[in-house]
Amino acid sequence: MASLPRRPHHDGSALHVSDDRPSLGDEVAVRLRVPTGYGPLARVLVRSNPDHEPSWVEATPDGIVDGWGWWTAHVIVRNPRHGYRFHLVHEDGRVEVLNQGGLSDIDALDGQDFALVAGNPPPAWMDDTILYQIFPDRFARSASADTRPAPAWAMPAEWHDPLDPVHPGRGRQFYGGDLDGAAERLDHLVDLGVTALYHTPVFPAESNHRYDASRFDAVDPLLGGDDAYCRLIEAAHERGIRVIGDLTTNHSGIAHDWFRAAYGSPDAPEGAFYYFRDDAHTEYETWLDAATLPKFDWTSDELRRRFIDGPDSVVGRWLRTPFGIDGWRIDVANMTGRLGAEDLNTEVRQTLRRTMTAIAPDTLLLAESTNDAATDLQGDAWHGGMTYPAFTRGVWSWLADPRRIPHYGYDGELTEDMWFFGLPTGMPRYDARQFVAQYERFTSQIPWRVQRGTMAALDTHDTARFATYAAPDAIPVAVGLSMTLPGIPVVYAGDEFGLEAVDGEMSRTPIPWETAGDPEVAGRIALYRDLIGLRRAHPVLADGGLRWLHVGESGVVFVREGASESVLVVASRGALDAEIDADLLPGLAAASDATPLYGAAGLTLEAALRITTTGTAFSAWALPGILAPAPRRPTAPATPAEAFVQVGSIPA
Amino acid sequence: MASLPRRPHHDGSALHVSDDRPSLGDEVAVRLRVPTGYGPLARVLVRSNPDHEPSWVEATPDGIVDGWGWWTAHVIVRNPRHGYRFHLVHEDGRVEVLNQGGLSDIDALDGQDFALVAGNPPPAWMDDTILYQIFPDRFARSASADTRPAPAWAMPAEWHDPLDPVHPGRGRQFYGGDLDGAAERLDHLVDLGVTALYHTPVFPAESNHRYDASRFDAVDPLLGGDDAYCRLIEAAHERGIRVIGDLTTNHSGIAHDWFRAAYGSPDAPEGAFYYFRDDAHTEYETWLDAATLPKFDWTSDELRRRFIDGPDSVVGRWLRTPFGIDGWRIDVANMTGRLGAEDLNTEVRQTLRRTMTAIAPDTLLLAESTNDAATDLQGDAWHGGMTYPAFTRGVWSWLADPRRIPHYGYDGELTEDMWFFGLPTGMPRYDARQFVAQYERFTSQIPWRVQRGTMAALDTHDTARFATYAAPDAIPVAVGLSMTLPGIPVVYAGDEFGLEAVDGEMSRTPIPWETAGDPEVAGRIALYRDLIGLRRAHPVLADGGLRWLHVGESGVVFVREGASESVLVVASRGALDAEIDADLLPGLAAASDATPLYGAAGLTLEAALRITTTGTAFSAWALPGILAPAPRRPTAPATPAEAFVQVGSIPA
Repeated sequence: MASLPRRPHHDGSALHVSDDRPSLGDEVAVRLRVPTGYGPLARVLVRSNPDHEPSWVEATPDGIVDGWGWWTAHVIVRNPRHGYRFHLVHEDGRVEVLNQGGLSDIDALDGQDFALVAGNPPPAWMDDTILYQIFPDRFARSASADTRPAPAWAMPAEWHDPLDPVHPGRGRQFYGGDLDGAAERLDHLVDLGVTALYHTPVFPAESNHRYDASRFDAVDPLLGGDDAYCRLIEAAHERGIRVIGDLTTNHSGIAHDWFRAAYGSPDAPEGAFYYFRDDAHTEYETWLDAATLPKFDWTSDELRRRFIDGPDSVVGRWLRTPFGIDGWRIDVANMTGRLGAEDLNTEVRQTLRRTMTAIAPDTLLLAESTNDAATDLQGDAWHGGMTYPAFTRGVWSWLADPRRIPHYGYDGELTEDMWFFGLPTGMPRYDARQFVAQYERFTSQIPWRVQRGTMAALDTHDTARFATYAAPDAIPVAVGLSMTLPGIPVVYAGDEFGLEAVDGEMSRTPIPWETAGDPEVAGRIALYRDLIGLRRAHPVLADGGLRWLHVGESGVVFVREGASESVLVVASRGALDAEIDADLLPGLAAASDATPLYGAAGLTLEAALRITTTGTAFSAWALPGILAPAPRRPTAPATPAEAFVQVGSIPA
Repeated sequence: MASLPRRPHHDGSALHVSDDRPSLGDEVAVRLRVPTGYGPLARVLVRSNPDHEPSWVEATPDGIVDGWGWWTAHVIVRNPRHGYRFHLVHEDGRVEVLNQGGLSDIDALDGQDFALVAGNPPPAWMDDTILYQIFPDRFARSASADTRPAPAWAMPAEWHDPLDPVHPGRGRQFYGGDLDGAAERLDHLVDLGVTALYHTPVFPAESNHRYDASRFDAVDPLLGGDDAYCRLIEAAHERGIRVIGDLTTNHSGIAHDWFRAAYGSPDAPEGAFYYFRDDAHTEYETWLDAATLPKFDWTSDELRRRFIDGPDSVVGRWLRTPFGIDGWRIDVANMTGRLGAEDLNTEVRQTLRRTMTAIAPDTLLLAESTNDAATDLQGDAWHGGMTYPAFTRGVWSWLADPRRIPHYGYDGELTEDMWFFGLPTGMPRYDARQFVAQYERFTSQIPWRVQRGTMAALDTHDTARFATYAAPDAIPVAVGLSMTLPGIPVVYAGDEFGLEAVDGEMSRTPIPWETAGDPEVAGRIALYRDLIGLRRAHPVLADGGLRWLHVGESGVVFVREGASESVLVVASRGALDAEIDADLLPGLAAASDATPLYGAAGLTLEAALRITTTGTAFSAWALPGILAPAPRRPTAPATPAEAFVQVGSIPA
C-alpha cells in the first residue's frame, strides 16, 4: 500500500513552533512544511482568533530543504488559549485550511485550531516522564504492616488470597500494602526505567481504594502514616523518581470530618461544603448514586480555603515540606464543581493550580476525565488528562479481541454484558485506520502541549488489564504505541508481571513479587524495560512532531520528528507491507540511514521506502533529524487593516 | 445520481423531540428513525453527559410505520445544555454513533452531540419570523427630515447621490433617512410578508452608521428622536410587525457621555467602564484599531448596572413603555467582554438576557458573531446568531461567481484583493457537496433550537450584496434556500429592489422607492414576496426536521418534515438529475402526492422518485406529513447501574 497523499504538515512541536511556553504578548513563530510536489502555493496566511475575532498574518516562504518548503508566520499570543490555523492559497486560487481537524477544502472549526497555551507551563520534566501507577493496598507490604491491626471496616486478606469482587469484599478486602512496602520496591521502578510514581489515594478512608477519604490532612496510619509517606517520597527522590498524589475534588467519603460535622447540623460551617437537599442536612448529592460519596459544593469559599486555595489548604499542604510531592492527579475532575445549572469547574481547577504554582511551580497537575475531555484540557490548569478515548479505547478497539468484556456487577455476578470503558454498547472493533481516525478526532481539540501531558495508559485500577484481552502478539504493539505516541506513558503496576484482570475491580491485584524470576514474567518485565528504554533514549518520542506516513487496514507507520533525530515507527496487527515515498522523510538517503532500535520489521529503500511486517509487530528506527531553513521575516506589515474592519461595524 | 445511503435520522424537530423548551429536571422523549433496509439493529441506547459524565438510557422500539422504524428514549434534562447522542448496536455487534457530527463508526465528540436547551426559551414567535433589515440613514426619509439641520460631522447628501466610499465621506455622508420615513414604508414590509423589522442603531452618534453611539438613552434627534421611534414601533405593531433594536456592547463611540466623563479623568465613576492604559486615562483599548470606538471593560459593576442589568439599564429601558421593542441584536457580541486573559462574555450575555426576561420575556436576543460562533451559541443567552459560515459563506461560495470580491479600502481605492466575509484569501468556490459539508460542519456544534434562531442572511449592511456576484439565475436559489433551511430568513432592505453593491460600505444604498414599479424591480419584489409567502404558508419550513436526500455536485434535494406536512426542496446550480428511493419519503405513494409549491423542476415517481432541473433552479413541493407510532416506555429500568460505576472510582 502506498503512502498517504503528500500533504502539508504542522504540529506544535519545536520544529514548527518556536516557543510552546509563551506568555501573553509574546511573539511566536509558527511554521508550515510543504512537501515538493504539493501545490504550488501562492500564499500562506495564518489566522489567529484573538478575543474571538479573526486576525491574519502573512507567512513568508523560507526556502526548500530536503524536499520540503517551509513557511513561517509570527503571531502575537493574545489569549490564554491562542488558536491558529493555516490558510493555503494555491496558485490556481484554491484555498485549503489546515488545523488539527485536518486539511480541508471548506472552512474549519475554531475549536480544532492549533493552539498555543500562554501561562501555566508544565514542569520541564513532564516530557521525560514515564508514570508507574500503584494501588497502595496492593502494591507491596512491609514487615511493619503486620503490627497494624485491621480496622473495623476491613476484611483482612493474605497477599495471595484471590480477589473478591463481590460486596462486601469488594472495597473492603484488605491486603495491607503500605508505603514502606512501596519504598522497599522502588528499585524495581528504577530497573524498569520509569521516572514517576503515581499512587491512588493514601488518605484515611473506609475502603481499600480510599477514594472515600475521611480526612485529607493525614496519611492513613494503615499505610504507615505521614512518616512513612515522607520516607517513600524521600527514597523516591533519591532515585530520581517523582511522586504524584491523588485527590478527590468531586467528593469525600461520608466518614470525612467535614461531612460528619455537616451531616444533620445545618449550622455547622461545613454545612455549605456539600449539597444538602433538606433543611435537616440529612439528604445530599452524591457521586452518581453512591451514598458513601457526598459531592462537594464549590460555591463555598470556606471549602475552597480549606481544600484548594493557598499554602495551608489540602492541595498546598502536601506540596510543602516535609512531604514535597511533585504533583496531583485529580479524581473525577470532569464532574468537579458541576451539578445541574452550576458549573464551577474552571474556577476550581484554576484556583487549585494557582495554589500549586505559588508553592511549587515545578509540579504537574493531571485530571481524570475519562471521556471526551477537550473542554477542560485547554491548558489553563490541568497540564494533561487521564482520559481514555484518544489512546486507550483506540488501542483496545484495534488490538484487543473480544467485543464483550465481562465484568463483576455489584451483585457479584460476572456478567457478559457489553461494558467497555464506560461504553455499555461494548468494545468496538477497529482496524488501524479507525484507530488513527479516533486518535485524531479526540486530540483535534486539545492543544499540542496538553496532548503531551495526557496519560497514554493501556489500563488502570479502573479498567480491565489489556493483557487479558490482547490479540496474539499485540502486547508489544500496544506498549510500544504508549511509548512512541505523544503523551505520558503509564505502566499500571502488575502489567509488567503479566497480570490479567477481567475488569477494574479484579485489576487491583496484589503484586506477585516472587514471580519476577519466572521466565515468562521476566520476559514481560524486559519488554517494558526495553520499550521504556526506547522512550528514554530518544526524547523525540516525547516532544517530537507526529506525522502519519501510512495508515492501512492492518497497521500504521508514523514518524516522530525533531531537529537532532527522528524515530520511525511501524505498528501492525497482522502482516503489513507499506511503501512510502522516501522523499517524505528528509535525510533518509539510504536504508542504512535508518538505525534499527526495536523489533524485526523489514525496512528497505529502493525506489521507495518499504516497510514490512510478517505479522503483528512493533518496530522502530532512528532517522536523521530534520533540517529546516532559518525563518525569514516579512519585509512589509503582514495584513491590510481592511481585512479586519469590513466585518462587524465600520468605524467612523 | 442515486440517493444518499439510507441511514438513521434524528434532529431536534418536533417529530424527534417531545419538548424543545424544557426546564431542568424535565423528561424529554428523543426519537430515532431508521429506514427499512438499514441494520437490523439489536439495540439503541441514548447517551447523555450530565455534569460531564456519561449516562445511558435504553431506547425502546416503537414499531415501523411507512417504512421507518422508530426508537424512543426518555431522558431527564440535567444541564442547561443537555447533550445526547444515539448508539446504534447492530445485530452483528457493530456499533455506530449518531450525533450532529454525523453517523460514525468510531466515537463521537461531545461538542457535536444533539442538545436540548433548558431555560431561556425563545419567544414563540421566533419560528414565524422573517426579518427585514434596515439602515436608518438610508431606508426612507420623511418630510420632517427637511426641517432638521445636518450636524457638524455630517456631509449632507441628496437621496439619489452616489455613495462615497472614501473617507471622509465614508461614515459621514448623511442622507437623512429617519424613523418617520421608515414608518411611512411599513406597508412595503407588509406587502413583502416579513414579520419583523431589524434596524441598525438609532442612538446619537457621529457617523451615519451610528455604531459609535454617544449615548444609549435617547434616539438620535436626526432620526426624529424618541417620539418618532415610538411612532415607528406603534405603527409596526399595528401591522403585526415586531421591531428589533441594535446595541453595541463591545464599545461605544468616543463621543459617548460615559467616555467623555472618563477620558482624562481617572477619578470619574465612568473611568472603570473602559480599558485605559495609562494613569491619565488618555490611552485606551479599542475595537480592533478604531480609535473612535473605545472598548467596554465589563469588570465594572457600575457599567453593568447602567447598561445591561435591571429595568433601568439601557437594555431594559427600550423594552419598557413607551417603546416596547421586541428584541435586541447585539453588535460584535463575539468580542464583548473578551480581552487577552479576560473573558466575561458568558456573564455579560447572561446578565443582559436576564434583564430582558424579567421585563419582557417574549423578546428575542440575537448575537453578531460573524465566524464560528459555536462556543457562544449554546442557548444560555443568545437565541441565535448573526453569523456567516454555515449559511451565508456557504451559499456565496456555491452560488456566486467571482473568487475576488473587490472592496473599498480606507484609502478609498477599490482594490481587487481577495477579501470575502472576513477571509482575505478570497471566496472559495464550492460545489453543492461542499456547500452541504460546510453547512453541516458549522451547525454541528449548535443546538437545534439555536440553529432555528440563527439568521440566514444572504447579505447585510456589512457585506457586498449577493445580487452583484450571483451566478446566472442563482438569486431565486439563494433566496429560496434562505426561506427553506432552518434559521431566520433575512431580507436586507434593497435586495428586493435589485440593488447591487461591491462591498459592505456600498451596500448602504438609499432605497430607490420610485423604482418599485419598474418591471425588473417589480419582478424581484415579487420573487421575495413569493418565497416569503412559501415560508409563511408552510411553517414546517421553520420548525420541521431537515433531511438531505441528494447531495451532488450540481445541487441538493432535501426535505423539511413535520407531522402535518413536509416540504421537499431542490436547489441546483446547473442541471440536476436526482433519483431518490421513494420509500425514504414516507407517505409519498404517487407523484400526485407531491403538490407543486414553487419552481419548475421536474418530479416523477416510478421505480424511484426522480427530480430534474434543466439549469440553475429552485423548486418546492408539499408532501404528506410523517406518521410515527406512539412512543413506548421501557418495561424495566433502562440502564444497569454498573455501566456508570466501573469508570472513575469504585464506591465502597
